[in-house]
Amino acid sequence: MANEVFTSLHRVTYAWCTMGDHVYYGRYLDMLEAARGEFFRHLGTTFLQWQEAGLAFPVIECHLRYKTPARYDDLLSVDLWVIRLDRLHVEFGYRTLKEDRGVVLEAATHHIGAGLDGRPRRLPPNLVERLQPYVRAIAPTDQPPTP
Amino acid sequence: MANEVFTSLHRVTYAWCTMGDHVYYGRYLDMLEAARGEFFRHLGTTFLQWQEAGLAFPVIECHLRYKTPARYDDLLSVDLWVIRLDRLHVEFGYRTLKEDRGVVLEAATHHIGAGLDGRPRRLPPNLVERLQPYVRAIAPTDQPPTP
Amino acid sequence: MANEVFTSLHRVTYAWCTMGDHVYYGRYLDMLEAARGEFFRHLGTTFLQWQEAGLAFPVIECHLRYKTPARYDDLLSVDLWVIRLDRLHVEFGYRTLKEDRGVVLEAATHHIGAGLDGRPRRLPPNLVERLQPYVRAIAPTDQPPTP
Amino acid sequence: MANEVFTSLHRVTYAWCTMGDHVYYGRYLDMLEAARGEFFRHLGTTFLQWQEAGLAFPVIECHLRYKTPARYDDLLSVDLWVIRLDRLHVEFGYRTLKEDRGVVLEAATHHIGAGLDGRPRRLPPNLVERLQPYVRAIAPTDQPPTP
Repeated sequence: MANEVFTSLHRVTYAWCTMGDHVYYGRYLDMLEAARGEFFRHLGTTFLQWQEAGLAFPVIECHLRYKTPARYDDLLSVDLWVIRLDRLHVEFGYRTLKEDRGVVLEAATHHIGAGLDGRPRRLPPNLVERLQPYVRAIAPTDQPPTP
Repeated sequence: MANEVFTSLHRVTYAWCTMGDHVYYGRYLDMLEAARGEFFRHLGTTFLQWQEAGLAFPVIECHLRYKTPARYDDLLSVDLWVIRLDRLHVEFGYRTLKEDRGVVLEAATHHIGAGLDGRPRRLPPNLVERLQPYVRAIAPTDQPPTP
Repeated sequence: MANEVFTSLHRVTYAWCTMGDHVYYGRYLDMLEAARGEFFRHLGTTFLQWQEAGLAFPVIECHLRYKTPARYDDLLSVDLWVIRLDRLHVEFGYRTLKEDRGVVLEAATHHIGAGLDGRPRRLPPNLVERLQPYVRAIAPTDQPPTP
Repeated sequence: MANEVFTSLHRVTYAWCTMGDHVYYGRYLDMLEAARGEFFRHLGTTFLQWQEAGLAFPVIECHLRYKTPARYDDLLSVDLWVIRLDRLHVEFGYRTLKEDRGVVLEAATHHIGAGLDGRPRRLPPNLVERLQPYVRAIAPTDQPPTP
């Protein structure tokens, strides 16, 4: 039950690539945002619905480690979990893999609960509860190699 | 058989939006490119595979008519068909709808066959053949309203 | 006085490029938007100031003709003029040149005056007056070749 | 001579903004890339020239701390310096300020020297020499307030 990981798939378009046939270093943040959006939809309340309820989750910090370049038409899987969770903060961890299981990107984004005026605002208990199963101290381990 | 239309779905992310809560006018071209990519995959040979065979399809012209703004988290459907097709050129038509069937965008992109050196190169007969069913003189009409 | 053209310069970054070492077809719309922003600043009232006064200029149509690909680090000049101007509409023409005067892009964007509620709103007379000198029936002609 | 900082200016366009009237968190990486490009031009050899000489500087890691949102039409100044420099690696530090001197972003990008085949390649001594004056242990301190 605990130690859950949410996985979403993202196809690399030309719009994400740059000279030299690889994904531009900033476009991965577009992908991570799309992954978070799908994750919240999966949890049952979308970012749009939270916003309509007066709550936003601005990013205050992020960290990206680029391992292997992703290329045009790659189908990337983004594993997403929770690194840290308290009343005001949630930090997500991400690992992005190619179809051959090669690691493209390891990343973390740190968010704060905020009202629409930008002021800090506690994360609602029913959100914290739904995030809880995704908290894990360490990154998901690699699949054992296929024989 | 003829008059076919290919439809793909695209979720609006924050990355596509701009100030004022609507999709930025240039980001729709990212979406149309993603739609073309899915269409060629559906036809059986991806853009990447054509490129590996020495063929590219650069855009030489495009035309966009913005009807209703799309907004964050909208699930857009892009209908794609062929407006014009000859040995060197293919022009795609697109209509983008919201879930409520409101029209967001009407567009056309005009492509030329080209070698990797950029020189014009005939579209392969087996591509022309697969595009043929999607040729239509006029845009697809709206679905009759669901009762 | 009449037939004026406003010119702005734009350096191509990796962020604008895609696979194959050329500018992505949609990123030119980012550049045209930046050019319009500089043009309005030059006219004396920025888009931000118009917006603070309750007026926006949404794009309702655009048309792009791609002539020669621009590449990383190219310094592009965008010539901007007015194709059409009436009480509700302004249509801008653009021509983008490389430093060697090769034409990269010819484009037009058609805007409507709108209130912040999205409803059509007349362009203010003092804006129309300042746009008037930039109205021209035909695109600016090429510079005579330097000897 | 030492402890130098390179500063470049960047105007926020609608293309960089997202819903809620602030710059999208990933677009700051486009700005940092533009700042690096101007810095290398200032040093005397552009990224394009290094690339033509067979050398690239891929990003292997980056870290961003978002302090205050930048907004449409803000004129941002990016201070750039060198945090770490050895034969294979260069890490840049950045601080982005608004015109009122409010801090928007603190960031670091870590690059490795690489051949065009992607393999690690030593930074040329004449590049290391030109980067040396920009090495500093701590971030540049704020300007004293203007009276």
